[in-house]
Amino acid sequence: MTTTMTTTERWDIFEAEFRSAAAADAANPFRDIAFSAVFTLGNRTVPVTGFHDGGDVWRLRFMPDAEGEWTLRTRSNDPALDGQQAAFTCIAPAKGNHGPVRVRDRFHFEYADGTPYFPFGTTCYAWTQQPLAMQEQTLATLAGAPFNKIRMGFFPKDYNFSTNEPLMDCYQRRADGTLDFDRPNPAAFAHFDAQIERLRDMGIEADVILFHPYDRWGYADMTEDQDFAYVRYMAARLSGYRNVWWSLANEYDFLLNTKPMLFWDRVFQLLEETDPARHLASIHNGDPDAAYDHRKPWVSHVCLQHWDVKRTAEWRHVWGKPLVNDEPQYEGNIWCAWGSITPQELVHRYWLTLVRGGYAGHGETYEDPDDLLWWAKGGVLHGDAPARIGFLRGLVEAHAPAGLTPFGPEWPWSRVSGAASGDTTFIYFGEHQPALWSTGLPVDTTDCRVTVIDTWAMTEEPAQIVPAFVPHRSRHGGVVRGGTPDAAFAVRLPGRPWLALRVTRSPQGRVS
Amino acid sequence: MTTTMTTTERWDIFEAEFRSAAAADAANPFRDIAFSAVFTLGNRTVPVTGFHDGGDVWRLRFMPDAEGEWTLRTRSNDPALDGQQAAFTCIAPAKGNHGPVRVRDRFHFEYADGTPYFPFGTTCYAWTQQPLAMQEQTLATLAGAPFNKIRMGFFPKDYNFSTNEPLMDCYQRRADGTLDFDRPNPAAFAHFDAQIERLRDMGIEADVILFHPYDRWGYADMTEDQDFAYVRYMAARLSGYRNVWWSLANEYDFLLNTKPMLFWDRVFQLLEETDPARHLASIHNGDPDAAYDHRKPWVSHVCLQHWDVKRTAEWRHVWGKPLVNDEPQYEGNIWCAWGSITPQELVHRYWLTLVRGGYAGHGETYEDPDDLLWWAKGGVLHGDAPARIGFLRGLVEAHAPAGLTPFGPEWPWSRVSGAASGDTTFIYFGEHQPALWSTGLPVDTTDCRVTVIDTWAMTEEPAQIVPAFVPHRSRHGGVVRGGTPDAAFAVRLPGRPWLALRVTRSPQGRVS
Repeated sequence: MTTTMTTTERWDIFEAEFRSAAAADAANPFRDIAFSAVFTLGNRTVPVTGFHDGGDVWRLRFMPDAEGEWTLRTRSNDPALDGQQAAFTCIAPAKGNHGPVRVRDRFHFEYADGTPYFPFGTTCYAWTQQPLAMQEQTLATLAGAPFNKIRMGFFPKDYNFSTNEPLMDCYQRRADGTLDFDRPNPAAFAHFDAQIERLRDMGIEADVILFHPYDRWGYADMTEDQDFAYVRYMAARLSGYRNVWWSLANEYDFLLNTKPMLFWDRVFQLLEETDPARHLASIHNGDPDAAYDHRKPWVSHVCLQHWDVKRTAEWRHVWGKPLVNDEPQYEGNIWCAWGSITPQELVHRYWLTLVRGGYAGHGETYEDPDDLLWWAKGGVLHGDAPARIGFLRGLVEAHAPAGLTPFGPEWPWSRVSGAASGDTTFIYFGEHQPALWSTGLPVDTTDCRVTVIDTWAMTEEPAQIVPAFVPHRSRHGGVVRGGTPDAAFAVRLPGRPWLALRVTRSPQGRVS
Repeated sequence: MTTTMTTTERWDIFEAEFRSAAAADAANPFRDIAFSAVFTLGNRTVPVTGFHDGGDVWRLRFMPDAEGEWTLRTRSNDPALDGQQAAFTCIAPAKGNHGPVRVRDRFHFEYADGTPYFPFGTTCYAWTQQPLAMQEQTLATLAGAPFNKIRMGFFPKDYNFSTNEPLMDCYQRRADGTLDFDRPNPAAFAHFDAQIERLRDMGIEADVILFHPYDRWGYADMTEDQDFAYVRYMAARLSGYRNVWWSLANEYDFLLNTKPMLFWDRVFQLLEETDPARHLASIHNGDPDAAYDHRKPWVSHVCLQHWDVKRTAEWRHVWGKPLVNDEPQYEGNIWCAWGSITPQELVHRYWLTLVRGGYAGHGETYEDPDDLLWWAKGGVLHGDAPARIGFLRGLVEAHAPAGLTPFGPEWPWSRVSGAASGDTTFIYFGEHQPALWSTGLPVDTTDCRVTVIDTWAMTEEPAQIVPAFVPHRSRHGGVVRGGTPDAAFAVRLPGRPWLALRVTRSPQGRVS
């Protein structure tokens, strides 16, 4: 047993390496050698699955979630790997280590240390399978981009604009050149691990896509046993990284002709069995109407792709979990309908989604003579949306630390979008251009700071406050409406679209 | 009996006047005197309800739908009005008289003579209750506008921006000044009739709203008997006008606290009983989620208001009738969410609705110092949408005489909108800006004329045709996709939003 670490930060990785020449000689050491450990802190025990890393090497990775003196004892059907013991001290996390992301307040997220986390993700499905120089370029781009999550597959992707050969085989090849789906290629997995670690150190969550339908190598057609072994292997390798999220599939429903619905339930369960950290887990649809029952207990949050984002509050209500619309279509100009919306429209959909209580994801698909599209391969960003997405992220983090709770569904909140976070209200007008507005403003005080936000120009200006107006008192069937102001004051607006209001109750901000 | 007409055009009004001094002395001649007639053409008999028009006058109005020698014989409980006979000759319609509008091919409309009719309506709820000079202004505006239908109430409207006194009482006043809802004011009805006739002569359909919830005079709170008498009276007066459509209510669901759901069924039935022409009849919701069961047999077409117009094909499918979204929100800038969308957005919603198989309606609500908003009062138009709506109407009438049948719902038609009409296809990109496109183009021929339409700039230019491209062949779960072109050719587009394509198979239009 080799471990160079005797102390580990809380939420960092404790890793231990074990060797067994005998085990390495097994017919298939990945399949035939069982290897796990029980980690112990006081009376608490945590079962942890180990993994074979090629040659004579087995590893344990574990993310301790509590400080103190941990010990471990291995278990294996190989005597050389069985009954090994080790100990380490879990110490306080360093600055910048906030732990893994968890669900907060039913519809939101936070790091394990209680710091709010607002997902502003992007998508680069196969970036870890591109040439290494391009991977460095991707990481450099991410360092300057506003994204704190990335959707990424392990398997390469065979699809339009993504037809090149992958950097590495995910499984070992037999003598005849065919892939042996019972023997992972440790080098490919180790590279993937390393890139997840790079992302972690940049503060970026890795939303790891386990399966996807776009395949020419056979990864989408492994047997169920091979799929399940793959899931356990991924969980054993990756669950120690605090920035991992599990995304069972990209477009799971496009795999339903080969993997039945119960398969997905079982994968969720396998992750629960194999991942002691219980990282966030979700499943991503293809068809807008294909909804996995996200109410199932193993689903931590709803991940979906849907263009009709004004329905966000409706979905949130139906499933009762945090909602991440990771693909409200992509900024770009390719010939695929999902990859050709304007940057203005993507920014609009971000605002609609956020102010209706969900979270949105980014992707970019501009034509490129060499098919270097960010959405598939990473590289560089060309679009105009990311800056505005960063602007929105900044506003949410600064002004809505509790997360946004949408108004509604009463009129007019099915048309204009409004949400509150503590004493702050956001109202997003989008395609609306009212010259005067008061709905949703405070009814009981004028002691507010009111800001007009131009979501595209990324400007903030004090609003022009005007006296409250009185909607005309009239019968509305058997109900009388109007006759009193909707709010304590009103706002004059410049009469153009893509504006939002931020209203904060503030003793410094008396408006009239 | 007095009738000055001995011949009547097919689909024009035959009107006959009858007098009875005795009947006029009845306690309430509107209520106490029954008056109807049976019209006869050969073996065919048509019962027609007459009406009291004040003083000693009773009238019959009838729109003959077949040429020939018609006779009539009256029936009444007043001997002076009973057993009267008359005859007239129904002759061929004059040029421009196409008859009433009917449903065609399940989802579309046509005039009775078979001429296609595409509803491009606007909304002026209370224009007939404004000062007469403004009514003339409204008619003059309509003469230069692209609209061939207008939604209009009979009762005045009490609502925001519509608080002035009506031109006329709809019912007679008692000595104490209160309205007597058992005694219609014939002058108000006659004025309404006259304005419908003006519209008819301009080729504009009058979508007559019988009830609405916005009331301070008591019209929304009449008894059920009074409501039913009003419906019969309206049908007796108006069913002879070929341009009348019945709209049972504006926002019927906002009246449900005073008028139960069964009430609306009964009003539809009363119209069937009283209107021998069986004009089109619909009912209009308030809440986007409030759907009357438009499948009921007395509903000729679906009228609704809803902003989420990408659902148009879904609604059309559910109800299986022509769909008119008369209020996909209005161009304007008032403080009401439904009345503040940009002209660009309204034009976008028109295109989305049309190319998804429905029809859309217009309204305009710009702030005015005197509250002269087109939507409520008519007057003049200020907006930028009408010209673009007229451009779209021209395209549909010229290139889709059979009406548009939407593609879908398969990918990508839930995102981009496409529809066909005979040999012509429209593809509307909206917020999409693809630089290259082939989905939905003909697969079997390049013998086409392809036009790029800028829906906002109102321009049409020949498309830049390029060779068909081959989507990458890849596995999509257990299905192989790609490997062959989607179409016989492709189109290069300028990469900006709000464009549409029109593709017509044409021997003159070989594209490559």
